[in-house]
Amino acid sequence: MTTIDIPAGSPFGTDNLPYGVFSVGGGTPRVGVRVGDSVLDLAAALGDDVFAAPSLNPFMAQGYDRWVAVRERISALVGGDVPDAAVHAVADVALHLPFEVADYVDFYASEHHASNVGRLFRPDAEPLLPNWKHLPVGYHGRAGTVLVSGTDIVRPSGQRKGPNDPAPVFGPSARLDIEAELGFVVGTGTPLNTPIAPDDFARHVFGAVLLNDWSARDIQAWEYVPLGPNLGKSFATSISPWVVPILALEAARIPLPGQDPEPLPYLRESSPWGLDIDLVVEWNGEEVSRPPFREMYWSPAQMLAHMTVNGASSRTGDLYGSGTISGPEKRQRGAFLELSWGGKEPLTVKGEERTFLLDGDEVVITGTAPGANGGRIGFGEVRGRVLPAD
Amino acid sequence: MTTIDIPAGSPFGTDNLPYGVFSVGGGTPRVGVRVGDSVLDLAAALGDDVFAAPSLNPFMAQGYDRWVAVRERISALVGGDVPDAAVHAVADVALHLPFEVADYVDFYASEHHASNVGRLFRPDAEPLLPNWKHLPVGYHGRAGTVLVSGTDIVRPSGQRKGPNDPAPVFGPSARLDIEAELGFVVGTGTPLNTPIAPDDFARHVFGAVLLNDWSARDIQAWEYVPLGPNLGKSFATSISPWVVPILALEAARIPLPGQDPEPLPYLRESSPWGLDIDLVVEWNGEEVSRPPFREMYWSPAQMLAHMTVNGASSRTGDLYGSGTISGPEKRQRGAFLELSWGGKEPLTVKGEERTFLLDGDEVVITGTAPGANGGRIGFGEVRGRVLPAD
Repeated sequence: MTTIDIPAGSPFGTDNLPYGVFSVGGGTPRVGVRVGDSVLDLAAALGDDVFAAPSLNPFMAQGYDRWVAVRERISALVGGDVPDAAVHAVADVALHLPFEVADYVDFYASEHHASNVGRLFRPDAEPLLPNWKHLPVGYHGRAGTVLVSGTDIVRPSGQRKGPNDPAPVFGPSARLDIEAELGFVVGTGTPLNTPIAPDDFARHVFGAVLLNDWSARDIQAWEYVPLGPNLGKSFATSISPWVVPILALEAARIPLPGQDPEPLPYLRESSPWGLDIDLVVEWNGEEVSRPPFREMYWSPAQMLAHMTVNGASSRTGDLYGSGTISGPEKRQRGAFLELSWGGKEPLTVKGEERTFLLDGDEVVITGTAPGANGGRIGFGEVRGRVLPAD
Repeated sequence: MTTIDIPAGSPFGTDNLPYGVFSVGGGTPRVGVRVGDSVLDLAAALGDDVFAAPSLNPFMAQGYDRWVAVRERISALVGGDVPDAAVHAVADVALHLPFEVADYVDFYASEHHASNVGRLFRPDAEPLLPNWKHLPVGYHGRAGTVLVSGTDIVRPSGQRKGPNDPAPVFGPSARLDIEAELGFVVGTGTPLNTPIAPDDFARHVFGAVLLNDWSARDIQAWEYVPLGPNLGKSFATSISPWVVPILALEAARIPLPGQDPEPLPYLRESSPWGLDIDLVVEWNGEEVSRPPFREMYWSPAQMLAHMTVNGASSRTGDLYGSGTISGPEKRQRGAFLELSWGGKEPLTVKGEERTFLLDGDEVVITGTAPGANGGRIGFGEVRGRVLPAD
């Protein structure tokens, strides 16, 4: 038996306990929990085969009461002795996509982001469209290309057409961008015609991840009318390997910045709440932005309520992104499109000028939130490097 | 042993042999083939456990050479004696969703439909947007709400706002519509960064189904800018239970109506082809339209090539819809939005005026194509009845 050491100030203390899927030495992937710099093998530690699965889906499908009970058991275990064979150094494991993605929806819930993009894409019109403050605008993305952090991103090719080009051309995207977001994972869904009220959020949503919605702006700009983004986004969406339980985010709950006009009743919460999560975006190792989730206009619970109010069912593994997180300050913007103002105001990154991503560039997004023990809990990171187009 | 009777002129002759998933008397769903008015239990007839699965996915994943070989074996079997226990009357079986849907993409490939919708949704602008003739416009829909024919459709609720309303209201959709489409099912996908050339279509796409993309036009009109349709579509998409193999559609191949300008090289086929498939739309038992798939501007192979050209992977069970099939004539339009010209020109259906769907209405879409034996092969039907909002 052994005890798990948790370094002082670790963002993976007992108030976090995020779940992931790991393997050791090419072995079978299975569910683990991050504790300090260790990974606890849950099937080995708890003797429960639901954690021997290569994804979190079977455990998530067991529902809220089990999520609470297992979290309590893990907390108790971590304080005492655990079998040696159940503990691995995080440096010794490979991390995999933590859950099978059912449907993937991406929202657009930051007023600052939506306003900036509106100014850039539709310079002659009101930046916010008439529907934006009445409903959380969102669309479905490609579930099959949700990738775990660390997966290289090959620069996508596609059609683009500048405003003065006579015809579109085909080639590698010249405006490859990121979107720094949070993603929320549905643990237990609902059948058809069973909308989820905002106040029921925590009984259905299992956890949250960091999400990078890679975006080819030139492809997107040409294709997106009238049915929305498609190939400009569908080549890759990266997520962090650790799913932070919603149960660990209680201390991060804060009021929303405020909604005016008041949303329709199906979007109202008894106590509307956001999350005080700070993201950091590093470009080739240099911090370029600190997107603040606390500034988001629409709440995670409102997004879920909206997504199901028409009778659409939801499933274990459904993932929804918040949309780019941008704050009011320039250095709080979560996309390079906004940081470089459409490419017109280059950034200096490690001494080089940058607007959009060059081949070989690497982006790392990290995030932290207040934890229950007075410190901060961590989301880990979502990392991706750009490879040249094939 | 028994022989399977095929009535003269049956649309389910030996040149069709569509696959589905059926059960008898509440038993376990498994794969069958429709022959005349019978269903042949493939696990029982061929002694192959891949057909004991409750979906076509394991068989589809085995790939093109297996699809060819199994079709030949079934053809041979159907001409001779088969075990009694392997044959069921189609009236005695329940039909299920034939495959697990991975990602669902819906295109917009009919020039007549896109032009009509453009005139209705954007009356002050050119009906076709500048990108439309350069790429098959499409977007991702909700895979989790793809339903088998016969599933009742509860009228969705959501936000809508008329042009003169001061604010949006919430309630049941007042403009519930259909879209008559074909859907194409990917049998074997490709990993990331492996685009599928149009000429490789038949090695990747397993079959086709009828598809009804139920659409709440009032919800859609309010929500769809700038990220495309979401709740106006995500409540339900119905498909026919029989998957007609692409191998059965060789005789239905015809040239495309013509593409001008010439598409970019990645969309070019050595011999561009469409499909001579006739759909029939019945509203409460009365035929209201005959949408002709032969009029589609973009081909099924071009849609697949476009969907993967940016490096997006594809998976067994990916489903993509053609978009509404509309021909040049009024009675060839595949959506009630177009048939009633935005509700301004009601149809008479069974002696009653109709613009959009009323509670209790039922829509049945059928389809046929030329078969290899000189007759016509059938897609069966996709049926749905509208229930009142909850």
